[in-house]
Amino acid sequence: MRLSKLVGERTKETPASATVKSQALLMRAGYIKQVSNGIYSMLTPAQKVSCKIQNIIRQEMNKIDGQEVLFPVVMPREMWDESGRYSSIGSEMVRFKDRTGHDMLLGMTHEEAAVHMAKNIVKSYEQLPCMIYQIQTKFRDEARSRAGLIRVREFTMKDAYSFHTSQADLEEYYNRVYNAYFNIYKRLGLKNVIAVASDSGMMGGKVAHEYMLLTDIGEDSIAICSDCDYKANVEVATGILDKVDCVSEELKEVFTGEAKTIEEICNFFKINPSQTCKAVCYAMEGEQDKSLIVFVRGDLDVSEAKVKAIIGKDIAPKDLDETLLVKGNIGPLGLHSDSLIVLFDESLKNENNLVCGANKEGYHITGLCVERDLLWAKFADVSKVKDGELCPICGKGVLKVERGVEIGNIFQLGTKYTKPMNMLVHMPDGTELNPIMGCYGIGVGRNLACIAEESADEKGLVWNMNVAPWEVVLCPLRLDDESVLTKAENLYSALKDAGVDVLYDDRASVSAGVKFADSELMGIPVRVVISPRSLADNCVEVSFRQTGEKQMMSYDDAVEFLVKFVANSKF
Amino acid sequence: MRLSKLVGERTKETPASATVKSQALLMRAGYIKQVSNGIYSMLTPAQKVSCKIQNIIRQEMNKIDGQEVLFPVVMPREMWDESGRYSSIGSEMVRFKDRTGHDMLLGMTHEEAAVHMAKNIVKSYEQLPCMIYQIQTKFRDEARSRAGLIRVREFTMKDAYSFHTSQADLEEYYNRVYNAYFNIYKRLGLKNVIAVASDSGMMGGKVAHEYMLLTDIGEDSIAICSDCDYKANVEVATGILDKVDCVSEELKEVFTGEAKTIEEICNFFKINPSQTCKAVCYAMEGEQDKSLIVFVRGDLDVSEAKVKAIIGKDIAPKDLDETLLVKGNIGPLGLHSDSLIVLFDESLKNENNLVCGANKEGYHITGLCVERDLLWAKFADVSKVKDGELCPICGKGVLKVERGVEIGNIFQLGTKYTKPMNMLVHMPDGTELNPIMGCYGIGVGRNLACIAEESADEKGLVWNMNVAPWEVVLCPLRLDDESVLTKAENLYSALKDAGVDVLYDDRASVSAGVKFADSELMGIPVRVVISPRSLADNCVEVSFRQTGEKQMMSYDDAVEFLVKFVANSKF
Repeated sequence: MRLSKLVGERTKETPASATVKSQALLMRAGYIKQVSNGIYSMLTPAQKVSCKIQNIIRQEMNKIDGQEVLFPVVMPREMWDESGRYSSIGSEMVRFKDRTGHDMLLGMTHEEAAVHMAKNIVKSYEQLPCMIYQIQTKFRDEARSRAGLIRVREFTMKDAYSFHTSQADLEEYYNRVYNAYFNIYKRLGLKNVIAVASDSGMMGGKVAHEYMLLTDIGEDSIAICSDCDYKANVEVATGILDKVDCVSEELKEVFTGEAKTIEEICNFFKINPSQTCKAVCYAMEGEQDKSLIVFVRGDLDVSEAKVKAIIGKDIAPKDLDETLLVKGNIGPLGLHSDSLIVLFDESLKNENNLVCGANKEGYHITGLCVERDLLWAKFADVSKVKDGELCPICGKGVLKVERGVEIGNIFQLGTKYTKPMNMLVHMPDGTELNPIMGCYGIGVGRNLACIAEESADEKGLVWNMNVAPWEVVLCPLRLDDESVLTKAENLYSALKDAGVDVLYDDRASVSAGVKFADSELMGIPVRVVISPRSLADNCVEVSFRQTGEKQMMSYDDAVEFLVKFVANSKF
Repeated sequence: MRLSKLVGERTKETPASATVKSQALLMRAGYIKQVSNGIYSMLTPAQKVSCKIQNIIRQEMNKIDGQEVLFPVVMPREMWDESGRYSSIGSEMVRFKDRTGHDMLLGMTHEEAAVHMAKNIVKSYEQLPCMIYQIQTKFRDEARSRAGLIRVREFTMKDAYSFHTSQADLEEYYNRVYNAYFNIYKRLGLKNVIAVASDSGMMGGKVAHEYMLLTDIGEDSIAICSDCDYKANVEVATGILDKVDCVSEELKEVFTGEAKTIEEICNFFKINPSQTCKAVCYAMEGEQDKSLIVFVRGDLDVSEAKVKAIIGKDIAPKDLDETLLVKGNIGPLGLHSDSLIVLFDESLKNENNLVCGANKEGYHITGLCVERDLLWAKFADVSKVKDGELCPICGKGVLKVERGVEIGNIFQLGTKYTKPMNMLVHMPDGTELNPIMGCYGIGVGRNLACIAEESADEKGLVWNMNVAPWEVVLCPLRLDDESVLTKAENLYSALKDAGVDVLYDDRASVSAGVKFADSELMGIPVRVVISPRSLADNCVEVSFRQTGEKQMMSYDDAVEFLVKFVANSKF
């Protein structure tokens, strides 16, 4: 590829819209261009990286006997009515009517399509286990697209679906996928990747794992044990909480005026947040007239995922103006009402002398002793783990909460889809069975952005040889010098003929400084410079983006060296 | 791939919904499964063929300096308002509102996205010419999806866009694409492909070509000269019509009662259709209160494409009940009205003694002499060419109308998109210019279906080696025989190791007949049979799907032979 004709532009300025490093660099280096909120076009360099990522994913999926297929992007409502998700998924799913008035949708995930495909053609236990996967464009109408390709509305994704005759068989295959994912990340060159137990969300099913790239730009929080292997998304992680040891005192109503938030209350009473009882109010799906109040120790946050799992319904923060509750003064005492469901987090169990709301404008209560005052309370684990809790598995390690970006996920689905969609296979004993499913997702663009994020340096992107858009960039200086031009053109042809993917910076009107800065910004692993000076010794200068090292080399040896170096740099 | 685990089923019964051979075979052989009207899932064999087709297209696009990119499927309205197509394209384009109420659409074609990408980053004449392309899913809400993958609503398409500083440069590049497309079809193994001049439709621009696979299942009609190179879609083809030589007679009003259609009128008067003057009525875009009447010689059909090009507006057949016109009795005499636009096809020029409607229920007029009676008539070429007309180019050859399926198209667009979207490049003389564009499309699934259609025989699909889902199918018979099992498993491994893409029919409970029928139905180019009988001589039987030929061969030579045969069969 000749750089002079490459559709793209390299800029020094960080675009105002960029919020993370990878986004800024991918925009500055001419890889991506924003089309709309959360929607990007991929220019050639990004598309080339994307194709290489896709091929690595494809190879690893084929190794575990995956069969590549293609499901439709646009699907009819009926299939999603069968699974129940047409109504259970909210506005992140795009729905529209086709020209005949038929309800259609854009697939965000393809469990229904996978069952539709396998149903009636996978009929016998002998055909199981099997796994089908696709690599395809998906659109999710994300409310919070952010950080360039990290969280977008339209993206390319590999999604896979396996079918099994038993839970044991699913688990065995699930483990194969579990390991295949680590192979993928390894080959992509991602380093700080961990797998954590996760919430299965709208997918259904029980066991699920997320693969997290640990990075400060992550929007997920993961609790990691200092001693054992325990790792989990804080949404589902459990921990052993230190108890606040207090002498019990009498209940007392105190005028607290404008002090409403936990912070304000702590300032008012000169106490720590762990000595308060916080109330969080939710609306529940399909329960227009009711509210859910979750009480949690004031130093903790509610895990919506845990709450959802317990009440079996979707929840969303509730606007208190629609209720009779006293904003900022909600407490558990005297809160009985038919329109309320109340849940206590286990963090409150046995705690004494807490401050809580008095359900009365401007007043709080001190001296709340949970065991003494709230005999009727039902406890459940509905809080997010925080830094410093003890590990629930080994009991000794301390949990540390780190930030991460989810770069893949795997789920055990059970029969959530095969049962309502009536997929049946014949078993050896003559019975019929709804196959047990697993599903496995990995986003191509997000992984591309994560590689960029993890490997970039102050000069720009740094691609490894497995995914680099071009393996070598050829930078001739002084193209007005006939010998440079001839040698450069010849080397370009020879490298192409030898199968090296080379970007040829054939721009004649651009300075050496610009050429070097561009090649560094674009992150090409190897740069070859040909100049009148190097040619005086019949040499070229080869430098390496990752290490910054340089070496002079005979022009005649360059092709052989580069072919070998490129091959040896793949992993 | 082990056939026992392949998600798919082979059936003998032709599905009721299948209307053409390729559709029936692709469904029967487990390649595709219908999800909704005009929407299919691709199972693994089809996806494999599709990937091979995509790679051939990709290679040929790269050879002509194409840069692969990826545009979004979902785009915001604004871009399409700029080009004017948000309103000019009808209900085949899916529109919806996103969660914030923003108007979005599903891209049917990506001229706007291409200009949006290139604009501001392609700034100088030095960067031109350049061509960007993508291979991606598109959704068009076709009113008439049909024939399996031939005409669907969702499909994978390669679309390419080139930018130029002059018409001459565009034409030069257009010719390169013109030839690249023939290379693609050649490598796909398609035989009866021709390029014809075509209407540029909603794309805008003037010069355009369609690539047609000549086949009886085609829904396009192409006029082909018997003597010279002239070929054109009948929608835009011109021809030299034989004139009907009649003595002129007096105008006479005749009661024709219920005779309304051309056929009924011809029966009534015992004349040929060419002796009548037919009226066709259209509604025009944006002209609610007016009708367009096109008069054409009764043996010809109106070309809507030609009419659109002349009046510069979209048209659609009009419901006559909404007008004051007398259905079945419309004629040109006394038809003046402000609410009518009247167009005469050139076929009527100088014709004498025609029968036409009298604009009076139950009456026609005979003796219409166009030159004498219709002094005010304006003529234009608005009819479709028919079999037997003389070639407009050489004047000697006779045009024959054949049926074809459009398997690709290329357009010269001019500045239709760069001008309204304000894309500008600097020219050497300091001026700025809207680049001149070309666009080039080819549908992957339709080509897949066309290869299937053209090459299939009475036993099933017949893939050539370039696109076959698997190159070799290995059919062991009597897998309960340990020596067959061992030899088959070893041969399967050896072939895989040697890089042969092999389908292993490892089903133990299936008869030889079923295995043979399945392998023929699926169309795998080479079949290797291992049986107790062949192994008695340490042999395997190799047969070839295309020719039906068979040969026995030493088991030990099989891998080497197959590797060579597969390589030599690629073209």
